[in-house]
Amino acid sequence: MDLTSAYTPYTLNSMVQYLPIDRTFAALADPTRRGILERLGQGSATISDLAGPFEMSLTGMKKHVQLLEDAGPTTTEKIGRTRRCSAGPRRLEDVQDWMDGYRLMLEERLDRFGELLERTQGEAER
Amino acid sequence: MDLTSAYTPYTLNSMVQYLPIDRTFAALADPTRRGILERLGQGSATISDLAGPFEMSLTGMKKHVQLLEDAGPTTTEKIGRTRRCSAGPRRLEDVQDWMDGYRLMLEERLDRFGELLERTQGEAER
Repeated sequence: MDLTSAYTPYTLNSMVQYLPIDRTFAALADPTRRGILERLGQGSATISDLAGPFEMSLTGMKKHVQLLEDAGPTTTEKIGRTRRCSAGPRRLEDVQDWMDGYRLMLEERLDRFGELLERTQGEAER
Repeated sequence: MDLTSAYTPYTLNSMVQYLPIDRTFAALADPTRRGILERLGQGSATISDLAGPFEMSLTGMKKHVQLLEDAGPTTTEKIGRTRRCSAGPRRLEDVQDWMDGYRLMLEERLDRFGELLERTQGEAER
């Protein structure tokens, strides 16, 4: 089974290895962080631009942004005394690749079931 | 901004509310759990079928499966003394919807940049 480039045969490893994709999924598992990405999708923003609408402290917002930066979908740049946050450069490709591979696998399996069912019905009608 | 059906305007809530989609993303943020989904995508399996290749205790495997069942992409059924695990019925639609909405937003923004750039160049050449 080779799902996608993001697929690694975990079943062959006795030691679980955490991968960048784990960090991406974990970064997305929080409504505030998804909200930050949605906001940055509209245009770049400073930490305080972000903190305001989320009613969050600057320190709390910095932590969320740091996590998104480590995971990849956000970049930040220090300009004078402010930190400017932007979307990109990584666009969640690893997560999307895994999702595509999983959906494809389920669809192929459904197709095989469908074929089997048709064959069985064909034989029953004979 | 209305991303998708999975989008909720978090910026309007001062209290962060965790949603089923958070649980789905968190369930996927682990290589063993993604491996279980990939295995179940091939066909249903008992807890011990799953535990073997992952070199994991039955108790450890049960916990991972429980988490996947709570999040939705896995169902289990007790048959006699064994627990049979299967893929479905939820196929990660909420995660996929969010991903689609986010990608669309970035693409639309790129398009707007492109149009602006063309207009600016057109004016400069005049």
